[in-house]
Amino acid sequence: MQFKKSVLLAVLATTTFSAPLWSAESVDLLIKDATVLTMDNSKTLYHHGVVAIKGNKIFAVGDASLAAQFDAKKVLDVQGDIVMPGLINTHTHVSMTVLRSLADDVPDRLHRYIFPLENKLITRDMVRIGANLGNVEMLRGGVTTYADMYYFEDEVAKTVDQIGMRAVLGETVIKFPVADAKNAEEGINYALRFIEEYKDHPRITPAFAPHAPYTNTTEVLQRVAELSKEKNVPVLIHLAESHTEQEKIAERADGKSPVQYMHDIGALNDHLVGAHMILVDDHDIELVKESGMGVAHNMSANIKSAKGVSPALKMYDEGVRIGLGTDGPMSGNNLSTIAEFGQVAKVHKLVNQDRAAMPPIKVIDMATMGAAKALHMEDRVGSLEVGKLADIIVVDTKAPHMVPMYNPYSALVYSAYPSDVRHSIVDGKILMEDKKILTVDEAAIIKEAVEYTQIVRDTVIANGDEVL
Amino acid sequence: MQFKKSVLLAVLATTTFSAPLWSAESVDLLIKDATVLTMDNSKTLYHHGVVAIKGNKIFAVGDASLAAQFDAKKVLDVQGDIVMPGLINTHTHVSMTVLRSLADDVPDRLHRYIFPLENKLITRDMVRIGANLGNVEMLRGGVTTYADMYYFEDEVAKTVDQIGMRAVLGETVIKFPVADAKNAEEGINYALRFIEEYKDHPRITPAFAPHAPYTNTTEVLQRVAELSKEKNVPVLIHLAESHTEQEKIAERADGKSPVQYMHDIGALNDHLVGAHMILVDDHDIELVKESGMGVAHNMSANIKSAKGVSPALKMYDEGVRIGLGTDGPMSGNNLSTIAEFGQVAKVHKLVNQDRAAMPPIKVIDMATMGAAKALHMEDRVGSLEVGKLADIIVVDTKAPHMVPMYNPYSALVYSAYPSDVRHSIVDGKILMEDKKILTVDEAAIIKEAVEYTQIVRDTVIANGDEVL
Repeated sequence: MQFKKSVLLAVLATTTFSAPLWSAESVDLLIKDATVLTMDNSKTLYHHGVVAIKGNKIFAVGDASLAAQFDAKKVLDVQGDIVMPGLINTHTHVSMTVLRSLADDVPDRLHRYIFPLENKLITRDMVRIGANLGNVEMLRGGVTTYADMYYFEDEVAKTVDQIGMRAVLGETVIKFPVADAKNAEEGINYALRFIEEYKDHPRITPAFAPHAPYTNTTEVLQRVAELSKEKNVPVLIHLAESHTEQEKIAERADGKSPVQYMHDIGALNDHLVGAHMILVDDHDIELVKESGMGVAHNMSANIKSAKGVSPALKMYDEGVRIGLGTDGPMSGNNLSTIAEFGQVAKVHKLVNQDRAAMPPIKVIDMATMGAAKALHMEDRVGSLEVGKLADIIVVDTKAPHMVPMYNPYSALVYSAYPSDVRHSIVDGKILMEDKKILTVDEAAIIKEAVEYTQIVRDTVIANGDEVL
Repeated sequence: MQFKKSVLLAVLATTTFSAPLWSAESVDLLIKDATVLTMDNSKTLYHHGVVAIKGNKIFAVGDASLAAQFDAKKVLDVQGDIVMPGLINTHTHVSMTVLRSLADDVPDRLHRYIFPLENKLITRDMVRIGANLGNVEMLRGGVTTYADMYYFEDEVAKTVDQIGMRAVLGETVIKFPVADAKNAEEGINYALRFIEEYKDHPRITPAFAPHAPYTNTTEVLQRVAELSKEKNVPVLIHLAESHTEQEKIAERADGKSPVQYMHDIGALNDHLVGAHMILVDDHDIELVKESGMGVAHNMSANIKSAKGVSPALKMYDEGVRIGLGTDGPMSGNNLSTIAEFGQVAKVHKLVNQDRAAMPPIKVIDMATMGAAKALHMEDRVGSLEVGKLADIIVVDTKAPHMVPMYNPYSALVYSAYPSDVRHSIVDGKILMEDKKILTVDEAAIIKEAVEYTQIVRDTVIANGDEVL
């Protein structure tokens, strides 16, 4: 299943474009002298390579000889820097940036601390302020597409539209009363209105986000599954994340695992994107693979909460659609998957007791094409190939920690910081150039977020908790 | 035991300095409007705080009211940024920067790949070029003191002297022929000459660096231990790092653990700094604690190599002198311990199955005072206290990923990048201001390192290996 067939490209060439030699082809943007990591099926790499962009699409990718074939309105000579597909963050709650660094270590954090805090705090303003802040953080960190699960997602959508990024935005469906719905039915109705409003947006894919199996009834999960097929939209869910969930689902469904349960009720399909997927066994992985569902692997959040390590490497190796995510900024706490790279590589080596497990190139694949597959968007983004949408980042390789660069995948995974991203391009448009965000007023966004923290502090204290 | 008693301060006050109100006291540097993490015993934190520096020492630390008492030659108004002790990297091989991103995942890496490569590559030039590159990386990442183990350490010393950082430099002693010594005896003699040359340097502490117990004889380890007492210098060693080492020492010493063996031969003492210490049991930890030795905890390198997780949290909680290190850039691969913070917190949570284990404040303690204790330098560095040496960093808190900052320890551990360091001060001197290195020509250093990579590539290929 592919969402938004309407924006599918007419031509998807697998070979490098070759223009006639007698006349220069006009393009909008030419990136040259790049270490191009295409992340195509063959993992083609060009030294001193070229990427040409026309409109919102990639027009050509190849070696240095290509440059002379184009007459470009704008040229980025990146002098050896890494040029790669924009990163895709498969799971976050972007608006929670305004709560970052609060109560990282409290016990029973979700139910005892976060839900009560959110019940008092979440408004359209909070969602907008937090999303604006998270968007600039992600764009700075090379994330060009993200998948979000939260409330008032139409507010998030406005911020994404404004900054120019790409996103899959899932409106929450949950059985408890929340800020934008009294119950799951109201959540579904909210989501339906949101889907109707954004179904034709070129960069925003509206979605359902049932919070988790254990926070929704079987009937609601089935209804969402049906509606997602009818509307052709994704379903984002937290799945197989915790022992609490495992126990509650086992109780509800004759000892079944969360994945088995979702399969048996007809909700495991190629519209679904499951976040975390820590507690999955080999049989679950088979079901996941057969279903065509996507998986969001959030290493930082999973180990910070001591929940465990997802068998993400095994899923990847078995062909599951799996990509990296950061989880929300109260969990992760960073929103650029570059901050995940090293941990993903190293923790999988550790748990597999094998230094050769999870080599850098697999991590980069999970951050790009894997993540595109997880969100069912691989026909449009995730690699630098002719005809794909021009979501591209340029990573500085000149800072001392990136020198030398015998292996660019290794440099990215083990050495790069999110702040090494120099340019971020989405849909052919440069949204950040030389680390300056061009489409929104970053200083005003940060100022508004800082001012909002007073409301958060007051609410935390009113809830009987402390700050710091 | 404290090295370099000669530079010990005459006055070590534990309370905030209070100048007479009737006249402004002249100081060299005043940092104001800072979120000051003193990392003193009480973990005193000042919002809008002040640090005053006179000569190479901290003259006053306190709240905003202090500022008016001083007449400063230079003022850094940091507008709420974090001001904290300079980071101390307790273990690295700085010159190996020129080999970074090579062969991260090859099996039997040390003996099959690295030693043969080093045998061909290591020259005074290589050591100097690599150290220069690593120094600027560390200074950019807030490391003001580091402990190094390598060859031609007098070359490293020259680079440290030039950039103005602080370092403990350990000259290698190993039984194999290496670039600067044919055998251990020659290594000892090299070290003795180096110690003689640098024993009075204000910022450089020369040291012995026996590579590991299994790569040296008992006699050599004992001789180094004796000489270290005689010369009053540290001994840096890799200890309890791998199963190979464990087996070889067990074979040599009636099944003893590496720590027990070192204890029994009289080499476990308060001059020693052991790197890694992964394979230590409760009895070993008792011996370590009683000996007064220091421990360098290198999470990234240890999990990247799938060697395991040191019980560093247990050692810390039991009062062992333990601090963070990065290991060398072929192992880590970053040289700023800021890149370690999140992993240290999260992996200890994971292995302890407890999200409350290793809270951010412990990580910051291990990066500062813990690391100072590990290197036996806590009387001079590691915290911001009156009379201590002025090794101080300022961390930018304005970038979107650092906003908001309800808890500065959490922001540092879970959100900060090494590139967030704005100013680095060593010995009262600003070495990096607004991310510009002031004491060396960074561009020339990077250029020389990049040029040197051709020699590395040629040598790798000559050894029958591939690059990338």
